[in-house]
Amino acid sequence: MSKQFIFTFCTSVLLTTSGFCQEEDSMMFRKIYTEALINGKAYGWVDHLSNKIGHRLSGSPQAEKAVEWTRKAMTEIGCDTIYLQECMVPHWVRGEKEKAAVTSSLNKAPVPLTVCALGGSIGTGAGGMTGKVVEVKNFEELEKLGREKLNGRIVFYNRPMDPTFINTFDAYSDAVGQRWAGAMRAAPYGAVAVIVRSMTLVIDDFPHTGVMAYNDTIKKIPACAISTYGADLLSSMLKKDPNLVFSLNMQCKMMPEVKSYNVVGEIRGSEFPAEIITVGGHLDSWDIGQGAHDDAAGVAQSMEVFNIFKNLKIRPKRTIRVVAFMNEENGGRGGAKYAQLALQNKEKHILAIESDAGADTPLGFFMEGHQGRIDLIKSWKHLFSPYGLHEWDAVGGGADIGHLKDANKDDNIVLAGLRPDSQRYFVYHHSGHDLFVNVNRRSLELGAASMAALVYLADKYGLK
Amino acid sequence: MSKQFIFTFCTSVLLTTSGFCQEEDSMMFRKIYTEALINGKAYGWVDHLSNKIGHRLSGSPQAEKAVEWTRKAMTEIGCDTIYLQECMVPHWVRGEKEKAAVTSSLNKAPVPLTVCALGGSIGTGAGGMTGKVVEVKNFEELEKLGREKLNGRIVFYNRPMDPTFINTFDAYSDAVGQRWAGAMRAAPYGAVAVIVRSMTLVIDDFPHTGVMAYNDTIKKIPACAISTYGADLLSSMLKKDPNLVFSLNMQCKMMPEVKSYNVVGEIRGSEFPAEIITVGGHLDSWDIGQGAHDDAAGVAQSMEVFNIFKNLKIRPKRTIRVVAFMNEENGGRGGAKYAQLALQNKEKHILAIESDAGADTPLGFFMEGHQGRIDLIKSWKHLFSPYGLHEWDAVGGGADIGHLKDANKDDNIVLAGLRPDSQRYFVYHHSGHDLFVNVNRRSLELGAASMAALVYLADKYGLK
Repeated sequence: MSKQFIFTFCTSVLLTTSGFCQEEDSMMFRKIYTEALINGKAYGWVDHLSNKIGHRLSGSPQAEKAVEWTRKAMTEIGCDTIYLQECMVPHWVRGEKEKAAVTSSLNKAPVPLTVCALGGSIGTGAGGMTGKVVEVKNFEELEKLGREKLNGRIVFYNRPMDPTFINTFDAYSDAVGQRWAGAMRAAPYGAVAVIVRSMTLVIDDFPHTGVMAYNDTIKKIPACAISTYGADLLSSMLKKDPNLVFSLNMQCKMMPEVKSYNVVGEIRGSEFPAEIITVGGHLDSWDIGQGAHDDAAGVAQSMEVFNIFKNLKIRPKRTIRVVAFMNEENGGRGGAKYAQLALQNKEKHILAIESDAGADTPLGFFMEGHQGRIDLIKSWKHLFSPYGLHEWDAVGGGADIGHLKDANKDDNIVLAGLRPDSQRYFVYHHSGHDLFVNVNRRSLELGAASMAALVYLADKYGLK
Repeated sequence: MSKQFIFTFCTSVLLTTSGFCQEEDSMMFRKIYTEALINGKAYGWVDHLSNKIGHRLSGSPQAEKAVEWTRKAMTEIGCDTIYLQECMVPHWVRGEKEKAAVTSSLNKAPVPLTVCALGGSIGTGAGGMTGKVVEVKNFEELEKLGREKLNGRIVFYNRPMDPTFINTFDAYSDAVGQRWAGAMRAAPYGAVAVIVRSMTLVIDDFPHTGVMAYNDTIKKIPACAISTYGADLLSSMLKKDPNLVFSLNMQCKMMPEVKSYNVVGEIRGSEFPAEIITVGGHLDSWDIGQGAHDDAAGVAQSMEVFNIFKNLKIRPKRTIRVVAFMNEENGGRGGAKYAQLALQNKEKHILAIESDAGADTPLGFFMEGHQGRIDLIKSWKHLFSPYGLHEWDAVGGGADIGHLKDANKDDNIVLAGLRPDSQRYFVYHHSGHDLFVNVNRRSLELGAASMAALVYLADKYGLK
């Protein structure tokens, strides 16, 4: 039987995954992974975004450059339509490098500590600030101490991420409340600033930034992340001298919002153009490191899906969109805008895939949404096994595509997130370690191929 | 029902893996992984072997130091017996740093290339050597060229590892023949030296060494590895000028064999002391980089198994041995000696586990040996799933424990190799990248815990 015949037989008549079609799909998977590993462009794109453009915080000149570059790059990968989706984004600037030190009668000179402002924090004023420090492990301890012990003090949240979680994202979720809500939980007790232990499982002297929140009804106080090495040092010094004085100087500030964009590229479906499959990552990053894993990798892998389709001459039946989202890190405005336009234009989204968990070796996908359709996707998992993917039961989608769920009132969409090995991710995440040199080319390419393979099946068979 | 009761019930009466025992095993797995992730010492041991002792080629002073250090470290981890197993090992020395360059009429000055001697190679003599270069991709090409084209020439084996293999060890196996046999295949045609493309999938300027072989009946010629960057450069220069001259200076040489040792630590079994379970890695390394992944990690993970048992107060019923093998890299004398003594002493080995595939995130175990016992081990795999292990079908054991198979005439042993994610391994392998800084702590610890968990079950239930 000729391959041509098998092809026609499978795609036009049966539309099942059994028998010949399984074999055809298995052969196409092999082609997809081979293409990514031999001719993949994702690594070069991550290089460009990381080394040539650099970190890309929303509102920064680099974020603007990244939008322009991505628009151009999308012409390379076979999009038939490319457009920008305008959105207003927060424009927070770090200003000059933060300074922090501890003065104690037990030390001859002030002891410097490595900190960075948390994203969105107010600054300390030009002259900086000083204060005594109270260490807590959680909000319960904070509340017990109350105004009496906290008024005028700097609160030091020092609960480490719990290393016993096997997936490090679970450890992050468990600890990140300190960073997000630390300032607004401490301010009502009269605290004047907060120091938050960096969200990482390693001990080193790299602070990890990340978004924090204020509440309009609560006084805004400065919030910084301290390296884990610094946190351990500060904690041990506090045990010897509870009256030590912490000095902090941060010149960060929030500027007026600015206009920015999602970059969208599309291949229009040949049979069911109204059914849309989205693949995406976010173009913005924090302003420390290069945003290589988070999330130049996700943008590059998403574009690679198109590049693979083009090179293998796969003509999709459904409309495939690659989206480079803006402002995932500190606002999620791009994701919200994408979903808002989807709702407004009455678009029918069947699947959205996001890659925003780093470029390490892919282990599977986490999913949420329509259960029957998730079950259909899971029925394909044997095709992914030869490529190392085996984790299909975790629940979740992604921060940017998450908005789409609310925009799909008939609840027919599946949201899927690429799930790479998480063991290294929080070494890099939001820190000076998030560099191109820390991206492993093959792992990145295998992730891109896995996304392409999932898009291939969802496009071929639909999700019904 | 009290935990105490469950414990007694399971271990003393039923000896099954169902019901309460499954729950007990699952709880013990959780304790083992928690212990490794919270109190693990493996990372510190890899640090010591890599940074304090450094690379440890057989016969080197560092290898000797490593033997002494390991013997001491084994006292920390609860061994009741510690001893050395003497073996004679090859003593090859690299000498001063190798030099290579290309002279062509198309270039004003010689172009330097980064090479290193392959392990075991003879040197070039003090004055170095020069010669014209013939590039081949494989032995078939070599044979076709024959003496006419190869006499007096330097053969350049330039077949890259094939990136389309998903497991990079398969790509290595497919290409490494050039390194191992390149010199003895080229010499009969009158070739005067060989240059071998480094065994790695990345393009960089780090040469990767590794063992090569001579045959007593064939003339010995010098053999070096060239970085992949250098290989691509040399190949492109050869296309422009096939008459270019390659100069090579290597002062490496083989010295007389020296005495060295396996280091063995033992916890004697409380019920079945004659049944032996071995866990091991190799103490020696190549003399480039620090031998951190290859294989300080494996030694440290093996010792960690004991450390975990000690801290969790697990008293094994069977005899558990941790072995730091000597001379895996260029002779395998330690592994052979261990098996020879096992045979001589009529030891009954039921399981041997080796870790020698790097310290990345563990994905499963490969196994060979008694099929019924392998099937029993596979029946436990659901206990490993929560910790990410899912690959149980690959066949293999390990270079050091492999000798044990021949020593077990009744063929009852299972050999198992820890199978980590392979995507990064050949970036490091046998090169200047194999450094402590490239070891991810959590991945190393998860590997050690996985080995401990497998030893725990094999000890508890036996393999019958």
